[in-house]
Amino acid sequence: MKFTKMHGLGNSYIYVNLFEEVLEEESLRTLAINLSNRNTGIGSDGLILIGPSERADVRMRIFNLDGSEAKNCGNGLRCVAKYSFEHGLVSAEKFCIETLGGIVSVTVHINETRIVETVTVNMGTPVLARNAIPMLGEGKESVVNEEISVGGETAWITAVSMGNPHAVLFVPDVEPAPVATFGKALSTDERFPDGVNVEFVEVLSSTEYRFRVWERGSGMTEACGTGACAAVVAGVLNGHTKQGEPVCVHLPGGDLTITWAVDGTVHMQGPAAYICTGEAHM
Amino acid sequence: MKFTKMHGLGNSYIYVNLFEEVLEEESLRTLAINLSNRNTGIGSDGLILIGPSERADVRMRIFNLDGSEAKNCGNGLRCVAKYSFEHGLVSAEKFCIETLGGIVSVTVHINETRIVETVTVNMGTPVLARNAIPMLGEGKESVVNEEISVGGETAWITAVSMGNPHAVLFVPDVEPAPVATFGKALSTDERFPDGVNVEFVEVLSSTEYRFRVWERGSGMTEACGTGACAAVVAGVLNGHTKQGEPVCVHLPGGDLTITWAVDGTVHMQGPAAYICTGEAHM
Repeated sequence: MKFTKMHGLGNSYIYVNLFEEVLEEESLRTLAINLSNRNTGIGSDGLILIGPSERADVRMRIFNLDGSEAKNCGNGLRCVAKYSFEHGLVSAEKFCIETLGGIVSVTVHINETRIVETVTVNMGTPVLARNAIPMLGEGKESVVNEEISVGGETAWITAVSMGNPHAVLFVPDVEPAPVATFGKALSTDERFPDGVNVEFVEVLSSTEYRFRVWERGSGMTEACGTGACAAVVAGVLNGHTKQGEPVCVHLPGGDLTITWAVDGTVHMQGPAAYICTGEAHM
Repeated sequence: MKFTKMHGLGNSYIYVNLFEEVLEEESLRTLAINLSNRNTGIGSDGLILIGPSERADVRMRIFNLDGSEAKNCGNGLRCVAKYSFEHGLVSAEKFCIETLGGIVSVTVHINETRIVETVTVNMGTPVLARNAIPMLGEGKESVVNEEISVGGETAWITAVSMGNPHAVLFVPDVEPAPVATFGKALSTDERFPDGVNVEFVEVLSSTEYRFRVWERGSGMTEACGTGACAAVVAGVLNGHTKQGEPVCVHLPGGDLTITWAVDGTVHMQGPAAYICTGEAHM
């Protein structure tokens, strides 16, 4: 089986082109587990299949390293976009990718040799209503700079759903921020029935943030695309940035440029990179 | 750059064939670090180069994932042997590999289609003298079933050097053995000036052992080839096995067959497997 390993800000997957390879549906979960194994497999965060779609230009399916199927992955979408354009699966620079979470619009930004340097993904419209985050409690429609106490510590959070729930905290310095303590505790707080990703954000200027995250289920990660989007939406809601203004967000794994456009959609622009291509002997 | 990823009992390396590829000496450490990275690289325990030798049939150089150069690696030697035979770098089934730790004799065991199924590596002669382990203390020349107390717990150890120091403990059941507690504590005990690898061994029969290990520096690992050799040498010294008798050692990562031959050398037979071949884009 031919494969390509790619990464977006260090979030790496094995990509298989279903326009060329035939895989059995019942083998996919086992294949994802075996390929992702760091010791006896190629090693990755999972397996992503790129294939034909009846509803969009290409279809992506994401299998986590435990074999479960994921709805969506921002870092993976940028890689699928680069791969699809550079391998001629699509010809336009703006096209649509079908995911289990819905159809996503992407735009590739190419250089003079038609190499994709960055990709912009339309991440959709943020949901701000408290009960849709979901977050328990009464009161105002959206949760902006609301006081919350966890384990005796108090913080002010802004809640944003980008399809998954986020609690954004603005801090004067992101380095010493209590990501692994307060962040971890808040992520499983009972006021968030589905759990919550917790972002600590330092506003360097209206167009530049520094960012650290505690992802529900994954812990402290290098790059959470939806978290960076939530950070900028929260930044606009708190007056740090104007809507429509692009913000460079420095994540531990690299930079993303996030824009909460005036039409209400959030755009994430960032890199995608090849690691290797080859033939798996497994 | 073309590469092959292989593993021996889950100990995986990126292999590069220097008969075909040209690499700059000053780039090797950085290359090993970058290729081994699990997120932005192919991901492995390190980089192994297979090239021409003036003193043996092929030469292997091992770079750990931190870029440091290693002397030797039993799991890597089996992979180098399989690769060299199947890629025609050697034609005989018994040949010699130059390593930073010396020249090693290997034998490939092939099937009717000349595919290497297992490899036997001559691991050399164990060193048993106390001061050569090295282990502090007076008394008899070798350390066989000697009482030792660490942190209030007492055990009986047999000390064996296979180029690196080992303390072997025979236990009635390896599953509940205190590898991460007593093993870890013993590995840095001051009586072993260079540290020591600690093997917990359950003797199922004279020809079958179960094995768990705490490797100095690496912790609880899946497969320690020299540790399996030390276990069988210690088994012979303690009367569990006759010298010359092959022992199947069940390691967490798989099985090795170890023989302390009557000529005094230790032979390790085990598998080697391809994971993938390809081109690195880094």
